[in-house]
Amino acid sequence: MPETEPAHPAHPALGFEEVVHQRARLAVLAVLAEAGEADFGFLKSTLGLTDGNLGRHLAVLAEAGLVRQRKDTEGRRPRTWVTITGQGRSALAAELAGMRALLARLDPHGG
Amino acid sequence: MPETEPAHPAHPALGFEEVVHQRARLAVLAVLAEAGEADFGFLKSTLGLTDGNLGRHLAVLAEAGLVRQRKDTEGRRPRTWVTITGQGRSALAAELAGMRALLARLDPHGG
Repeated sequence: MPETEPAHPAHPALGFEEVVHQRARLAVLAVLAEAGEADFGFLKSTLGLTDGNLGRHLAVLAEAGLVRQRKDTEGRRPRTWVTITGQGRSALAAELAGMRALLARLDPHGG
Repeated sequence: MPETEPAHPAHPALGFEEVVHQRARLAVLAVLAEAGEADFGFLKSTLGLTDGNLGRHLAVLAEAGLVRQRKDTEGRRPRTWVTITGQGRSALAAELAGMRALLARLDPHGG
């Protein structure tokens, strides 16, 4: 069960949604936002995750409607393709907006 | 045991350190970076966390040398003060730099 701290807009650091903000899931959404679609093997190697780890994170993202998974076969090899959904792109955009708000507050002259 | 994905600079989303990036811990460091020092009660109410939750996150942050805790009493009431360390400020700065890198990559014209 992900931690369910109340959304607490008082501080931008608390505006992040755990399902998106968690490091590996954020990386999956970021790669998919660029690639549109990627297969499981590509995500695994690009992000340096294990099968189990990536599988669990994809299940959380799919459960939240942020990615879709489909299976096909290449020759006799089964392949799993992962696509970011419109909802996934919006959730990632909200995460990035939260990062911008936090940067504006903590490091207004940075970068 | 926090997830120990290998640091994988290939994608900026994977450059975050879990001990800092985790939502509640990030919020604690952000509030302390602004306030310098705050007492347990203030952190708890400002961030909307439970005693147990905040206590666990502070233990992880203290273990990593990012915050220091000290106890004193006000009247007969024990109080716990939490201070961000120099290492804590650097770790937060690295997190913000990672956010900036991710924004530059995914949303170069945003904000």
